[in-house]
Amino acid sequence: MRDGEPQVGLVTEGGDTLRPLRDAITGRPVASLTPFLSGWAELKETLRPDDEELPLTFLSLLPPLRPSRNLLCVGRNYHEHAEEFARSGFDSSDPAGRTASASPEHPVIFTKSPDALIGSGEEIDPHTGLTESLDYEGELAVILGVGGRGITAEDALGHVWGYCLFNDVTARDLQKRHTQWFLGKSLDTFGPMGPFAVTADEVDLATTRLTTTVNGEKRQDALVTDLIFDIPTLIATISAGLTLKPGDVIATGTPKGVGIGFDPPKFLVPGDEVSIAAPRLGVLTNRVGRGAAGRPPGDERA
Amino acid sequence: MRDGEPQVGLVTEGGDTLRPLRDAITGRPVASLTPFLSGWAELKETLRPDDEELPLTFLSLLPPLRPSRNLLCVGRNYHEHAEEFARSGFDSSDPAGRTASASPEHPVIFTKSPDALIGSGEEIDPHTGLTESLDYEGELAVILGVGGRGITAEDALGHVWGYCLFNDVTARDLQKRHTQWFLGKSLDTFGPMGPFAVTADEVDLATTRLTTTVNGEKRQDALVTDLIFDIPTLIATISAGLTLKPGDVIATGTPKGVGIGFDPPKFLVPGDEVSIAAPRLGVLTNRVGRGAAGRPPGDERA
Repeated sequence: MRDGEPQVGLVTEGGDTLRPLRDAITGRPVASLTPFLSGWAELKETLRPDDEELPLTFLSLLPPLRPSRNLLCVGRNYHEHAEEFARSGFDSSDPAGRTASASPEHPVIFTKSPDALIGSGEEIDPHTGLTESLDYEGELAVILGVGGRGITAEDALGHVWGYCLFNDVTARDLQKRHTQWFLGKSLDTFGPMGPFAVTADEVDLATTRLTTTVNGEKRQDALVTDLIFDIPTLIATISAGLTLKPGDVIATGTPKGVGIGFDPPKFLVPGDEVSIAAPRLGVLTNRVGRGAAGRPPGDERA
Repeated sequence: MRDGEPQVGLVTEGGDTLRPLRDAITGRPVASLTPFLSGWAELKETLRPDDEELPLTFLSLLPPLRPSRNLLCVGRNYHEHAEEFARSGFDSSDPAGRTASASPEHPVIFTKSPDALIGSGEEIDPHTGLTESLDYEGELAVILGVGGRGITAEDALGHVWGYCLFNDVTARDLQKRHTQWFLGKSLDTFGPMGPFAVTADEVDLATTRLTTTVNGEKRQDALVTDLIFDIPTLIATISAGLTLKPGDVIATGTPKGVGIGFDPPKFLVPGDEVSIAAPRLGVLTNRVGRGAAGRPPGDERA
């Protein structure tokens, strides 16, 4: 965001500053990342970063992009989280929690409104009066570059443009009350995403460790390799009958250590600060606000 | 659709012909209904119908609109359907089916990809090889005209632009396997919508009767007044913490008589023709194809 207009920028090595991007020919500021995702290898050559480096702390960060439909989200995709969720009593939606294993046999796919997205530094609305069990879920999100249907697991990573951090904020009481999870996951501001997006070549999934802290206290700490259904399996499963598109986002699920994993539960309250971090992916930090909703939907930024 | 370009038209009294709409000042064809939904009372005056009346049967009908995010859908919202679904064994997602009442205590809200939408006359892809339990669900869909958050039930109908028919096509095996319903509901072509949209003043909800036939055999027949959670309640529930937008679509749920309601189940097979009808709302007819996917996503038409 600059002069009130969304603009895409290139985060410099180190992750502290950003160089605004322009169309190399027209010189016009680039307002959205989405048109460049498919065909990135060629299209990135049409982008020219400004010489000036702006400190990220001086900017209002928006979500890296705004998908043209709901985000695809994965539930119960780390074994230990599946167990803590089953124990919590907040999962009204699956009989697995009542059987031998809390881990699902097939990926659990639900969605989240793209208008719930906010950038790093924006406030999470606590929706006081509507929910009494506000929770965080630190996750790795996948950004699709090349769409398709019937993508095989072998080919899947070739369809990935890149990654970013995601907080699948959840109202546990609404998630339970409505049995299908959409509503408890899609309240305004329930989708912190960022702080920026990183191309796939910059990220080593084999060593990516995801951590979540609340007010500095470490709550989640897991390797992405511990996913029950890995990224190629998720892409193959979803695209079997649903054509994926550039700009689709898949939030891959959260590891153990969410608020309801503790006894008593550690729900978020106004003033709490949630930070999700991973090497190369930066730190996504959002404070729980006092109740006023933020920015109107529709803006985007990388 | 005309000359390959999507265009909005005004369906004439009787519902058999259509007059293409133009901007009254520029004379340009109107390509999308969405920008006119909010402020319809004034904006409709800026639309001028052509004098020529085109027979609907000569046109390729597209869905009335393409929402900018997933359709909001309601599950188990007629008592007798909730019972048949619980009996079928295909609902893995809710413990209510295992207790005294199959009817939910709160609206069950899930979503469907807007890229699954097809128009009346387009083919439903049977996704042979991926599902063996293709099913139909005739529904009344609500199109939002005026957005908002915290809309009260009393004010809710003032936010409705109009209505149309909807077929919430479902792969029952995928719906069950993935526990959350999104994937089994969002395969390509699983959203027949139309044949056209009708403004709220033309529809009397108190007497609207919805019927579904498959190959001419009546399967569903219900009054919209039998909804467990009526339209004002749905709008109030969803908008309590999620800002609704013009062009949002709420598919209100299906009555008894879906394929899994029969013993043995009556699943759809290639060549079957499903027609959903209601007075003033027309007839939404789609044949199950042989497996080739249809039109690329993104088009829209009223």
